[in-house]
Amino acid sequence: MLTRIDHIGIACFDLDKTVEFYRATYGFEVLHTEVNEEQGVREAMLKINETSDGGASYLQLLEPVREDSTVAKWLAKNGEGVHHIAFGTADVDGDAQAIRDKGVRVLYDQPRIGSMGSRITFLHPKDCGGVLTELVTSADPSSTEH
Amino acid sequence: MLTRIDHIGIACFDLDKTVEFYRATYGFEVLHTEVNEEQGVREAMLKINETSDGGASYLQLLEPVREDSTVAKWLAKNGEGVHHIAFGTADVDGDAQAIRDKGVRVLYDQPRIGSMGSRITFLHPKDCGGVLTELVTSADPSSTEH
Repeated sequence: MLTRIDHIGIACFDLDKTVEFYRATYGFEVLHTEVNEEQGVREAMLKINETSDGGASYLQLLEPVREDSTVAKWLAKNGEGVHHIAFGTADVDGDAQAIRDKGVRVLYDQPRIGSMGSRITFLHPKDCGGVLTELVTSADPSSTEH
Repeated sequence: MLTRIDHIGIACFDLDKTVEFYRATYGFEVLHTEVNEEQGVREAMLKINETSDGGASYLQLLEPVREDSTVAKWLAKNGEGVHHIAFGTADVDGDAQAIRDKGVRVLYDQPRIGSMGSRITFLHPKDCGGVLTELVTSADPSSTEH
């Protein structure tokens, strides 16, 4: 069951500049940064609030680290902006299968590793009203409390 | 101070069909529907979780009700997808002014009426890394608890 808005993924050309925009404009601070080689992105997680399921909601700022990454291709086509949205669940495997069974295309056979050790999958945007939609199970619920 | 992700605004051509997609696929239910004549939209609010500031996070599904609405023009250009994101604050007037003072264009001189009697304004997406960004103060904090 999807129990929270886990994050909004925002694609940008310059991560440092975008992090500074969110800090200077709104006071949002970076909780965590990492490079996800598989996804081809460098990313910063900005925690905005905690959520009633024991998790949290973040902005995820994404800069491509190679030209053949999906985010690089998306930026080349669309320019900067909201790239995807993500819902949090305690059971990404079960929810992904249930959603697949309803006829929505799930992009990975098995969940992959996302931000902060989470397990993630994506749903095809053409099956979701144009919205690239991610499902996330956090690595450890307590990891969102820091 | 912005204390939550208040909602993600998703533009669609057919609100009833989109509501049904979110219900059937994820189990998300409609909390509230309304027509906002000024914004030129018919909308459905789907509450996803409560937030640590006493508010909540929603999906806001938006269908244009007239061809000259900004959402209708946006859909004609972009197709269906994420139209804007919104941060919640207890003081939309003060935060909008503070953000304006930092050189970010605020689209309204004074906040206008948004979903469920909230007071809202928007920041220019060209000043926000391509992200149309809304600031929201709820009409009544308890109204998010239902």
